[in-house]
Amino acid sequence: MRLRNKPWVPELIEAHQDLIIQAPQTDLAGHWAKRFANPALPIELEIGSGKGQFIIGMAQAHPEINYIAMELQSAAIGMILQKQIDLKLPNLQLFLGDGAAVTEFFAPGEISNLYLNFSDPWPKNRHAKRRLTYSTFLAQYHQILKAEGQLRFKTDNQGLFEYSLQSLNASGWLFDFISLDLHRSERQASNVETEYEQKFAAKGQVIYALDAHFEG
Amino acid sequence: MRLRNKPWVPELIEAHQDLIIQAPQTDLAGHWAKRFANPALPIELEIGSGKGQFIIGMAQAHPEINYIAMELQSAAIGMILQKQIDLKLPNLQLFLGDGAAVTEFFAPGEISNLYLNFSDPWPKNRHAKRRLTYSTFLAQYHQILKAEGQLRFKTDNQGLFEYSLQSLNASGWLFDFISLDLHRSERQASNVETEYEQKFAAKGQVIYALDAHFEG
Ligand SMILES: C[S@@+](CC[C@H](N)C(=O)[O-])C[C@H]1O[C@@H](n2cnc3c(N)ncnc32)[C@H](O)[C@@H]1O
Ligand SMILES: C[S@@+](CC[C@H](N)C(=O)[O-])C[C@H]1O[C@@H](n2cnc3c(N)ncnc32)[C@H](O)[C@@H]1O
Repeated sequence: MRLRNKPWVPELIEAHQDLIIQAPQTDLAGHWAKRFANPALPIELEIGSGKGQFIIGMAQAHPEINYIAMELQSAAIGMILQKQIDLKLPNLQLFLGDGAAVTEFFAPGEISNLYLNFSDPWPKNRHAKRRLTYSTFLAQYHQILKAEGQLRFKTDNQGLFEYSLQSLNASGWLFDFISLDLHRSERQASNVETEYEQKFAAKGQVIYALDAHFEG
Repeated sequence: MRLRNKPWVPELIEAHQDLIIQAPQTDLAGHWAKRFANPALPIELEIGSGKGQFIIGMAQAHPEINYIAMELQSAAIGMILQKQIDLKLPNLQLFLGDGAAVTEFFAPGEISNLYLNFSDPWPKNRHAKRRLTYSTFLAQYHQILKAEGQLRFKTDNQGLFEYSLQSLNASGWLFDFISLDLHRSERQASNVETEYEQKFAAKGQVIYALDAHFEG
């Protein structure tokens, strides 16, 4: 998803530094808790939040967890920011930055669970390194996740899911949950859907999901 | 699949001991090569061959490999035997026995690749131990497979495939191949279909497949 540039976003970010952080920024790693109303809560991170339907839904459904929405495109995070300015959810922080560098932005064990939803599939083999479940990404996730912390991944993309199962397996992750049809599984009752998820499920496409933690 | 008992099968087995072996049998492990016309070829094993469409198709397509069809039900293996009496494939041997005891019947490293096709799903959790991809089965497969030898598994059953991905992952196997829609994958060109596979694919069901080898 590439959004049209939104020229008003930089100014909006500038005006709401209590709600959003922009990379590069020093002294971020290890200090995220302080940015939340309740610094004692566990922190969960989504990389590639798009327009934010999932992370806002999660923050509303789980006041006992602090959430960070990380997004590369300022136009996308600008749309989440607009919603958060209205909602003022005390347990949601936004972060304009690149998931390829999470170890710069988060301290070891700072994140309790990490979400990837409908990540760009990069179907060509020569682009495999760009997939958010490529081994170099997984190594970074493992660093910032606490012990037993989970990577939770959903996608409609068959090739990306097949690839991700193999990639996680090869990198020493253990699967705690796998569904090859999430919307007809027991978990659907508590599933918070993303924009892409709603769109693809409405077309009749199957949604795949997995949870995994690093075992080494 | 439970077949009606076929009273003529024991006699047919008795009359064709060059084509079929019946467990228990001593001195089997380590000596399978001698039962084939060309003892120098690698040996591949299918557990739960049913009526034998797959293993006969494989033996015909791959004269460079020796195949063993292992089946628990005498009525099923009797049907394979009838076909083999006509075909006299030099690279196919039949074995009436229980896959739960393969380490009794095969020596360490005697098997090059092992096939499980549309194994009984045993959907209830309390029957998980009966699934042919349960950890105790996997440990036995690993013993009889040569290093890098693959377990190759196909099924239409979503629950069994989800379970098997988790079970193999947890037991230290590495996935060399995963398809969540085998019949629309590149591999379909060389795929030899089983009876169940044809039946379920004709109903529009997706076929799942994986190859894995033990890494420890
Ligand atoms: C296909 S969209 C999915 C959006 C949303 N997760 C959903 O399910 O509706 C992928 C999103 O990931 C973002 N993205 C891609 N690579 C990223 C990276 N390295 N770091 C942060 N975000 C990234 C894209 O900008 C895009 O908004
Ligand atoms: C559902 S049928 C599938 C038959 C065939 N593979 C196919 O795909 O058409 C499963 C077969 O596995 C056999 N089977 C089940 N457990 C077995 C075991 N422990 N050892 C050998 N065969 C077994 C059953 O008797 C049955 O013929």
